[in-house]
Amino acid sequence: MIKIGILGAAGYTGGELIRLLVNHPEAEIVFANSESNAGNLVADVHEGLLGDTDLRFTDAMPFDEVDVVFFCFGHGKSEQFLQEHTIPAHVKIIDLAQDFRIAAPTHDYVYGLPEIHKAQIQQCQHLANPGCFATCIQLGLLPLAKAGLITHDVAVNAITGSTGAGQKPVGTTHFSWRTDNMSVYKVFTHQHLHEIRQSLTELQGSLDASIDFIPYRGDFARGIFCTEVVKFDGAEGTPTNPTAELLADMYRTFYADAAFTHYVDKALDLKQVVNTNKALVHIDKFGNKAVITCIIDNLLKGAVGQAVQNMNLMFGIDEKAGLGLKANAF
Amino acid sequence: MIKIGILGAAGYTGGELIRLLVNHPEAEIVFANSESNAGNLVADVHEGLLGDTDLRFTDAMPFDEVDVVFFCFGHGKSEQFLQEHTIPAHVKIIDLAQDFRIAAPTHDYVYGLPEIHKAQIQQCQHLANPGCFATCIQLGLLPLAKAGLITHDVAVNAITGSTGAGQKPVGTTHFSWRTDNMSVYKVFTHQHLHEIRQSLTELQGSLDASIDFIPYRGDFARGIFCTEVVKFDGAEGTPTNPTAELLADMYRTFYADAAFTHYVDKALDLKQVVNTNKALVHIDKFGNKAVITCIIDNLLKGAVGQAVQNMNLMFGIDEKAGLGLKANAF
Amino acid sequence: MIKIGILGAAGYTGGELIRLLVNHPEAEIVFANSESNAGNLVADVHEGLLGDTDLRFTDAMPFDEVDVVFFCFGHGKSEQFLQEHTIPAHVKIIDLAQDFRIAAPTHDYVYGLPEIHKAQIQQCQHLANPGCFATCIQLGLLPLAKAGLITHDVAVNAITGSTGAGQKPVGTTHFSWRTDNMSVYKVFTHQHLHEIRQSLTELQGSLDASIDFIPYRGDFARGIFCTEVVKFDGAEGTPTNPTAELLADMYRTFYADAAFTHYVDKALDLKQVVNTNKALVHIDKFGNKAVITCIIDNLLKGAVGQAVQNMNLMFGIDEKAGLGLKANAF
Amino acid sequence: MIKIGILGAAGYTGGELIRLLVNHPEAEIVFANSESNAGNLVADVHEGLLGDTDLRFTDAMPFDEVDVVFFCFGHGKSEQFLQEHTIPAHVKIIDLAQDFRIAAPTHDYVYGLPEIHKAQIQQCQHLANPGCFATCIQLGLLPLAKAGLITHDVAVNAITGSTGAGQKPVGTTHFSWRTDNMSVYKVFTHQHLHEIRQSLTELQGSLDASIDFIPYRGDFARGIFCTEVVKFDGAEGTPTNPTAELLADMYRTFYADAAFTHYVDKALDLKQVVNTNKALVHIDKFGNKAVITCIIDNLLKGAVGQAVQNMNLMFGIDEKAGLGLKANAF
Repeated sequence: MIKIGILGAAGYTGGELIRLLVNHPEAEIVFANSESNAGNLVADVHEGLLGDTDLRFTDAMPFDEVDVVFFCFGHGKSEQFLQEHTIPAHVKIIDLAQDFRIAAPTHDYVYGLPEIHKAQIQQCQHLANPGCFATCIQLGLLPLAKAGLITHDVAVNAITGSTGAGQKPVGTTHFSWRTDNMSVYKVFTHQHLHEIRQSLTELQGSLDASIDFIPYRGDFARGIFCTEVVKFDGAEGTPTNPTAELLADMYRTFYADAAFTHYVDKALDLKQVVNTNKALVHIDKFGNKAVITCIIDNLLKGAVGQAVQNMNLMFGIDEKAGLGLKANAF
Repeated sequence: MIKIGILGAAGYTGGELIRLLVNHPEAEIVFANSESNAGNLVADVHEGLLGDTDLRFTDAMPFDEVDVVFFCFGHGKSEQFLQEHTIPAHVKIIDLAQDFRIAAPTHDYVYGLPEIHKAQIQQCQHLANPGCFATCIQLGLLPLAKAGLITHDVAVNAITGSTGAGQKPVGTTHFSWRTDNMSVYKVFTHQHLHEIRQSLTELQGSLDASIDFIPYRGDFARGIFCTEVVKFDGAEGTPTNPTAELLADMYRTFYADAAFTHYVDKALDLKQVVNTNKALVHIDKFGNKAVITCIIDNLLKGAVGQAVQNMNLMFGIDEKAGLGLKANAF
Repeated sequence: MIKIGILGAAGYTGGELIRLLVNHPEAEIVFANSESNAGNLVADVHEGLLGDTDLRFTDAMPFDEVDVVFFCFGHGKSEQFLQEHTIPAHVKIIDLAQDFRIAAPTHDYVYGLPEIHKAQIQQCQHLANPGCFATCIQLGLLPLAKAGLITHDVAVNAITGSTGAGQKPVGTTHFSWRTDNMSVYKVFTHQHLHEIRQSLTELQGSLDASIDFIPYRGDFARGIFCTEVVKFDGAEGTPTNPTAELLADMYRTFYADAAFTHYVDKALDLKQVVNTNKALVHIDKFGNKAVITCIIDNLLKGAVGQAVQNMNLMFGIDEKAGLGLKANAF
Repeated sequence: MIKIGILGAAGYTGGELIRLLVNHPEAEIVFANSESNAGNLVADVHEGLLGDTDLRFTDAMPFDEVDVVFFCFGHGKSEQFLQEHTIPAHVKIIDLAQDFRIAAPTHDYVYGLPEIHKAQIQQCQHLANPGCFATCIQLGLLPLAKAGLITHDVAVNAITGSTGAGQKPVGTTHFSWRTDNMSVYKVFTHQHLHEIRQSLTELQGSLDASIDFIPYRGDFARGIFCTEVVKFDGAEGTPTNPTAELLADMYRTFYADAAFTHYVDKALDLKQVVNTNKALVHIDKFGNKAVITCIIDNLLKGAVGQAVQNMNLMFGIDEKAGLGLKANAF
């Protein structure tokens, strides 16, 4: 059994992580840390756990009793935490925040996108789990980047569920405002663009095109639905402008070994992945443009599902362990 | 033109009141008071007013320039405000809070339910506007009370939209929690029971039965859907146990002069009244029990729509002025 | 491995059953029958299965290759099917329709509510799976029936998700109509009252009180949220009118061995059980009345989750096998 | 009073038209034609009209008693209807379908977008009312077209409410499927592209760029939320690449006389226009790209609201008559 500690366990990602781990066949939660909730039953704070666990939050952090620690902090707090605390060297760290997603000489965190970094993940001690939008947008573009085909600006629209905005009630997550509503935010400036660009450049060193990303607030709780328009050069059927069939093959090949990412031949709808760790990708081709659709559950493949997938890889167990989730479907 | 001042103009009921008044043919908003928003455009705070008004919030309260003041405060603040401020005697007051809904020797506020108090409303200077649940629940029961037929405990279930919970974001109005969810609160103890009981007793002095009211939080923004089960005595068709037809007639007669409350012969659904000032009532009869359905929009007939209806009555203009609202329908 | 055949596999319950069984550690789907979809990929019809299974629908029914057949027909078709087809005697049948829920000398189907029939289920060859509303309403009342405490008419309100209305698009499941809407149907006459009454009478032979059930159509897809008001006689604390504490104990004891049904000390909300096989029950006490809240997922504990639980019992494996489901939570 | 006949009165647009006209100060509905509903109360078919009108559907079409006829047919039926029936020459026609939106020598229908065709509309006898997506997308681009600034392909995403899909229940409007879901359809091939292109070319004869339009199905009932990305050439501040301030001025000027279309300086959200006839436009500028947001209510400014606006213009009355609608807001 992998012995697990969770920091920031009372937030949304903390809760979803616990919901996953209580059913994981090879995981054992040793501590779920939350100062403000110390002593309270986890099941009283996190929906869906009543009857499943007697676990209580603790303000203790017994790092020497665990194999791995998940950081479920808000962004920026992971780095600060590590400056103020020492985690034993043998304890692996999986950070769900963005603090270490961009490679730098000052840290050794591996960017945990299994579709491109499986080998590094299997070897790493410290892992930076990708962002939700970043995961979805990258999975739609990576095969093209590998083929060097992103040569024009990409128009990206991605609609996220309200859980992406976290647990604290604010104006834009007030039910009365958000239900039946649509809006955009951080247009062209979303912070995930950095990690997206980092991955794309890894595969297509020459990448110069802009990723024009418009994030939408959706009036649903879970999921990201993303479309991406890519323009090709030259006549259709030439290497720089593949046919629809060749594009589909390219994606199928790229994701042939992916445990949870699949190319699908028909149009997608978001609920096909809600409450699963899957990413599904579909492409339509119109003349010299491709329209890529990619969908994930923002809390699972976009956060803790991928984190558990990474944990499985880091500990050498079945990549799918604990992630055989029944889709919500409705 | 009726000259109007609004206190607490930045809250939900304040906003809905302004949305009504900008289209009211005989109303003019003189001031919309909000300390925290003083100087800001009303249209920047309240959805749906962009392009409709250049009005700005003010921290002034020029009472001598108005004919009527609406109190859109939270509960308990109206009484406090009146202790600290003097409103000229000729200025009428319409209080949307619950502070003066219960008759008392210490105040002269008329309980503003036009279906039973039209004459008093037309004469009054100070009006206490009924609560949202209270309006809906009463309108379903008043004809029976008038006939002295509430002799057994009444089982009341009423589901409210999230706007009933006000503007401040809290856990139970967080979109991620509330969407697709159902819950109950203040079971059997909701504060509106006092005003409901007051009205019922007015019509049926002997009223002894309990009103067993379960309030539900609905996963929609607007409206109250209410069912009420009433038990009768004696054989069906006798005076104490009217037939379905007689009950329908009783309700039609009771609401014959009501401007916005109608008895309907078929099953109801909530969206028939959303974004209108209407209340619709329907009854099914099963043996010695009647099941009454009553629906309103909690912000309109349940709050500011009824307040404007009362204003119209208080100023002797058409009761329906400014309230010919297009139902949202979808 | 339990070898499984599914009839009516293209409907809602058929789809949910397949979503459960693809992750069940001891189940193998041998055939998923659907005439109209024969040859089509199951994953192309049922949301959430893309990438999980290559199973195709078939118009064949190779009963001799299976250990158990699930009937996922509409109501009334199970009986008809059995008149027209022969299923080998050694093959167990789990019928999700209502055809055999009422005990009769003409059939040997056991009513599959594990909370009261576990021993019979473990021995049976043919099982009638309870209805969704019926499961939720019974689980809220059974402990009281066992104590002989249902002596007054019970006011029951239960709000169901749209999946309860099945797959065929009709007016009341049209999104434009149903979203943000509320309505009631089959007031006091819902067909599940028969099986509810049958179970209650089993525990409280003297049962004379009426179950006054108002079914609501909710504007969400999954789940049933139910409240039940029960009136007691005598002074609180006497055997006929237990205190809140005694009632809670009574429920905890009654469900002590239940795998998925739990008494909870705090107020419930529907999403605590959505996408799980759990039923949660809570009681509030006010004077001589108790208000019981009970929640389930209508497609799981209210349909195929309970069917799989029953299958597990019928085959002597872990009652929870394949049902360790991650709650949707949001 | 303008005397009005409605054909196809039992559909969604027919219902919304009636909801508008019952409150229109200068309109009188003479007949509401529906063969299948002949004799039925309009209020029994269309939500939100109970208590507002005693109008019944008729299978008669007394054209000589009316001043104007609204065609609320499905697409393609208007032309067919006119081949089979004769409407007196003095009766004006407002067609809500797409049959006559594209100018042709074979008909004299004016394309009814008041923002560019007010004079023609005021003079015309026959009017083709614009499509919902077409209205929203055009209003976001017209000022740029007038300035000749659409020189690169435009990335358009527009999310529509379910009422855009009409009244007939189908799979993609089934509540269980659509709620909490997202999907796209008719990618790059939506039929409204023809009328959009026609209007843009009218203002920018040289238009060569592609309008890359991805229509999304939203999980709400009303409204269209649209973003459009336009690329400019040259240095910012030069005539071919205006600054944000200049763009805003350009839009304000273009819509200075528009009754319902307004440029707004801050980010928009859909509910600002739901249940109104308004269109709101906002622009963000990033380097050489502008991101335009435009929002409308698809049934009002996108259909019958605009049709009534056109009727007002055609009959020389106040353009805003009957369209002072209270925004739903929540």
